[in-house]
Amino acid sequence: MNRQYYGSGEYRMKAGMKTKPAHMSAHEFDELFQKVCNWGRWGPNDERGALNYITPAHVRAAGALVHSGRSVSLSIPINTVAGPDNPHPAVRYMVQTHDITYDLGEPTFCLDYIACECHGDCHTHIDALCHIGYKGKLYNARPVSSVTSHGPTSMDITTYAHGIVGRGVLLDIPRLRGIKWLEPGEAVTREELEAAEKAEGVRLGEGDIFVFRTGHHRRRLELGPWNNGYDGEGKAGLHSNVMLMLHERKVAAFLPDGDGDTVPSNVEGVAYPVHTLQIAAMGMVAADSLQFEELVRVCEEEKRWEFMVVLAPLRLPGGTGSLFNPIAIF
Amino acid sequence: MNRQYYGSGEYRMKAGMKTKPAHMSAHEFDELFQKVCNWGRWGPNDERGALNYITPAHVRAAGALVHSGRSVSLSIPINTVAGPDNPHPAVRYMVQTHDITYDLGEPTFCLDYIACECHGDCHTHIDALCHIGYKGKLYNARPVSSVTSHGPTSMDITTYAHGIVGRGVLLDIPRLRGIKWLEPGEAVTREELEAAEKAEGVRLGEGDIFVFRTGHHRRRLELGPWNNGYDGEGKAGLHSNVMLMLHERKVAAFLPDGDGDTVPSNVEGVAYPVHTLQIAAMGMVAADSLQFEELVRVCEEEKRWEFMVVLAPLRLPGGTGSLFNPIAIF
Amino acid sequence: MNRQYYGSGEYRMKAGMKTKPAHMSAHEFDELFQKVCNWGRWGPNDERGALNYITPAHVRAAGALVHSGRSVSLSIPINTVAGPDNPHPAVRYMVQTHDITYDLGEPTFCLDYIACECHGDCHTHIDALCHIGYKGKLYNARPVSSVTSHGPTSMDITTYAHGIVGRGVLLDIPRLRGIKWLEPGEAVTREELEAAEKAEGVRLGEGDIFVFRTGHHRRRLELGPWNNGYDGEGKAGLHSNVMLMLHERKVAAFLPDGDGDTVPSNVEGVAYPVHTLQIAAMGMVAADSLQFEELVRVCEEEKRWEFMVVLAPLRLPGGTGSLFNPIAIF
Amino acid sequence: MNRQYYGSGEYRMKAGMKTKPAHMSAHEFDELFQKVCNWGRWGPNDERGALNYITPAHVRAAGALVHSGRSVSLSIPINTVAGPDNPHPAVRYMVQTHDITYDLGEPTFCLDYIACECHGDCHTHIDALCHIGYKGKLYNARPVSSVTSHGPTSMDITTYAHGIVGRGVLLDIPRLRGIKWLEPGEAVTREELEAAEKAEGVRLGEGDIFVFRTGHHRRRLELGPWNNGYDGEGKAGLHSNVMLMLHERKVAAFLPDGDGDTVPSNVEGVAYPVHTLQIAAMGMVAADSLQFEELVRVCEEEKRWEFMVVLAPLRLPGGTGSLFNPIAIF
Repeated sequence: MNRQYYGSGEYRMKAGMKTKPAHMSAHEFDELFQKVCNWGRWGPNDERGALNYITPAHVRAAGALVHSGRSVSLSIPINTVAGPDNPHPAVRYMVQTHDITYDLGEPTFCLDYIACECHGDCHTHIDALCHIGYKGKLYNARPVSSVTSHGPTSMDITTYAHGIVGRGVLLDIPRLRGIKWLEPGEAVTREELEAAEKAEGVRLGEGDIFVFRTGHHRRRLELGPWNNGYDGEGKAGLHSNVMLMLHERKVAAFLPDGDGDTVPSNVEGVAYPVHTLQIAAMGMVAADSLQFEELVRVCEEEKRWEFMVVLAPLRLPGGTGSLFNPIAIF
Repeated sequence: MNRQYYGSGEYRMKAGMKTKPAHMSAHEFDELFQKVCNWGRWGPNDERGALNYITPAHVRAAGALVHSGRSVSLSIPINTVAGPDNPHPAVRYMVQTHDITYDLGEPTFCLDYIACECHGDCHTHIDALCHIGYKGKLYNARPVSSVTSHGPTSMDITTYAHGIVGRGVLLDIPRLRGIKWLEPGEAVTREELEAAEKAEGVRLGEGDIFVFRTGHHRRRLELGPWNNGYDGEGKAGLHSNVMLMLHERKVAAFLPDGDGDTVPSNVEGVAYPVHTLQIAAMGMVAADSLQFEELVRVCEEEKRWEFMVVLAPLRLPGGTGSLFNPIAIF
Repeated sequence: MNRQYYGSGEYRMKAGMKTKPAHMSAHEFDELFQKVCNWGRWGPNDERGALNYITPAHVRAAGALVHSGRSVSLSIPINTVAGPDNPHPAVRYMVQTHDITYDLGEPTFCLDYIACECHGDCHTHIDALCHIGYKGKLYNARPVSSVTSHGPTSMDITTYAHGIVGRGVLLDIPRLRGIKWLEPGEAVTREELEAAEKAEGVRLGEGDIFVFRTGHHRRRLELGPWNNGYDGEGKAGLHSNVMLMLHERKVAAFLPDGDGDTVPSNVEGVAYPVHTLQIAAMGMVAADSLQFEELVRVCEEEKRWEFMVVLAPLRLPGGTGSLFNPIAIF
Repeated sequence: MNRQYYGSGEYRMKAGMKTKPAHMSAHEFDELFQKVCNWGRWGPNDERGALNYITPAHVRAAGALVHSGRSVSLSIPINTVAGPDNPHPAVRYMVQTHDITYDLGEPTFCLDYIACECHGDCHTHIDALCHIGYKGKLYNARPVSSVTSHGPTSMDITTYAHGIVGRGVLLDIPRLRGIKWLEPGEAVTREELEAAEKAEGVRLGEGDIFVFRTGHHRRRLELGPWNNGYDGEGKAGLHSNVMLMLHERKVAAFLPDGDGDTVPSNVEGVAYPVHTLQIAAMGMVAADSLQFEELVRVCEEEKRWEFMVVLAPLRLPGGTGSLFNPIAIF
């Protein structure tokens, strides 16, 4: 979740805000925000948030999960094709091919160039904690005014410069339900997550990386792209109150296909409540627009839904996020 | 190593080709090329090259190296400042900050944008095997004409889409010599690498990821940037015939600071002989412009020079390389 | 006309080549190509093509057309919104606003950044003569191989560096027909152009800048964007054999809304016959994707369909074209 | 004038603010600001500022200046080479060449891509009136907060969408002095401008476009680039109090080589006083980084220093400026 707008000045939400009944009032949302809020938990200067849950012991345990030696990408190929869910496609151009460097002797080189927004529904990316503000505040009570046109003064993506390593746990909801994918607008509850844990024989715990599959990308592969924003069909995701469970369980990171949020939102006046809670309140590592279609095949073959995960965002000073290629290792 | 030119049409090499005595004749180089050539070794359709040396057992062994749970980046922060070694700086702009999204209600978002060449002496990156051609051929005898203005038809960076995981072994030459860094133009020999192995108690072997430190980045941090190309002061790197050793040892990947090559080249008529051999002949995973200043501190504290390495290039179809953030895990 | 592809490697023409009856055989087209061919007309080294028709006397005459002192843009606002006719939207980002420069004292600055392909159906632009090749040749028999991954070695957009100034003549076909716009696929004939000349009291002559209105942009403003390529609905334009008339009349430049070509093409095996003839054969100044909705109001008020035109492409070495803002002065 | 910074967060001015004696106090500057201030002159909603001085009669008179039919560019070729005065070089890449479109039949296309900041000392550009704020205000008392991360809400570059047409008058100071160029830091006074008027037989008047030559670009061509910012050698320009003369004369637009300002500034605490006065106070059309080396040859041959000028900025909604190619017509 991230790009709210379609073109210059034309806001998706404005344009077509769906009028689904609000299941949670603004007041109830604020209460929930307070319940899961980690501000001050790791001191007033903390910028790592829920990443603090990952201790050296968790990393060691993650390393011990490597048995078969298979690795698999959780990233969508970077998408340069404009479409209803990709209004700001990446551009990739060749800078040089092997055609003219012969004059210079050997060898010859080819080079390319890429330009992209660091967020977007068609680009697997990780968010920095400065990405989302709620009522004027970022995580740990930093003011949103700390982000100017030159970028954030703290909590940029270099907070994660040395990588994020831990145990990934996949909860595969379409597998649980015996379907191909969840439909846009469907929200997954705590009960369903617990049922998935049971079915897979795993339990999300402290310092874990929660890998959450709705089948969003499979739907896209089979049916083609759709407008998954507020003025379109939306997307499947979590119920907002699932964040309480993730808070109790001390989950460190959340990797969904889609972006984790149910669109349209079921909260009065808050567009992306899951993002808001996980980033602004909890300081949780947030990524979105991943894909697990290769992962699920490996999980089925390996008969396990836990694995080592390594996240290595680009080391981009001032970055509000980063394209990246999350890797699961079995 | 990669960007040969400085500006449009003005070639660095052309401009100032240094006239160091050629220690290796063109004929001798071709013989060396044949000796280390892996064309056909893994079949005519192979696109993975020396990455084939990394077996599941190597990955499992790499996972078993995780003890202390520390992870460290081997990447330079992405550099947006033009300079003598950065003629094509990355650009990063804010797309949106928290200042105007209030009209849309909560939450607010900030976003940014990045544009960059996928190679360059100031951007830690990995090369695809299509990146370098020698005498009209890429690795595994593919013609260079398979790379057009739309990009490569094979051996692009998505060959490595599922990540590269293995054992990293750091050979730290300044440590061996008791100095801060090697000076531009200095070439490291097989004998010196073997002495470093002995000093550190490690041995580069089959399927390993060779991490090679000349102190290039430390020199830059302390003395500032310099022109490290053929029309400038150059850079420290390997002697070309070290590639024979890496071939015998069946090394899978090579991660240098600098770019691995000694500049100027000691080979008659071949500008980047190490790159040429490792990529075009051997099909070895090649990265360049890493930094190990944080890594060496961890190695000294941990008293070990081997560690798990995870490389996760962006999943960019057609990419001739990728910015990335290589992670070492102890 | 210009962007033939939709995304990376997926060609529009391939995807959905319409099967309209071919009105002109490949052989007939080649005969037409020969009839309008200006290769060698201004010497073997000429790079200006039909621009040679504009003499100082024509420029002086154009200056003399300035009476009322009104000027009007013929450019579409640069379009950053992806859509069926804009798969590669321009990007524009703020680099700096006035929010953080206060520390430096006065004054404060705001800056922005733009990135765009130099062609495209939603970006008013001019083509360089290197833009189009036919059977391996550019205008004046230059080989297409003179354009490499570094750009063209001749006939780039800097050929027009000092601007193009002349008399513009608008032939407004919807006005002639008494309709709002031509429908996609409709082709305008010589007879119809001559009828428009008569209706407006003008005559296209030597050195003139032909401004050709189909109402393409008005249709877009009223009905919204559509896919105007070969796999879509197409667009209105000229009949290929109108180029004979433009050749006889010694027209110097052609400024259409749409891109001048009728899509789908009525020529067997040639996708954009008008572009091919005007650029590769005739060396005519070619621009496309202009809009005349403001111009027509001024023409009606001024009761004249001729005016001074000034074209000032960016001075971009190696450019195959340029975004620009053509100005008509009355 | 425009790019104040060198790299991300490192400000040139901060780094090396020169300590030349302040010839004008902050108070005196504010008085000067008031004297030349046009706020409210054309009503509270005016966004055109001094451009209002150009009436239809001026445009007609400009057309009447076209005699010999020669046109000449006042633009530097767009510069893709990083250097001390070009820390953010433009990038230009080929998107497609003629190499692979053969599969699709005829014709073949080549395309390119450009990305650039809209300001910068090596890119001939025009500023929008929103570009500069003084004490929190833009021209006509608009608050600087009207420019957010999404761009300006008024006075963007589309204010000039229909082009700027008028009489250009070149005052060539090196010609007056009989030298090749002014040295960095030299400031030109009213007396010297009036002497140049006399020498050339022209007089700057109401609605004129003032073309001001210091020889900045000739110096660059002959001596190479230098750091012309506040932490470098600086540049030649106008004395701040010349703006009183331009105000009295009702000049509409100002086109300098360099950027018009003398660097370092001779005003206490104000970095670019000429820019500040012309844009924020007077609402004058401001461009910078032009070159007149071709123009002066034509002026000498034509024996006149007045000519028609056409300025056609890109029609970029939200643009704070635009690369452009100003054209003089004789």
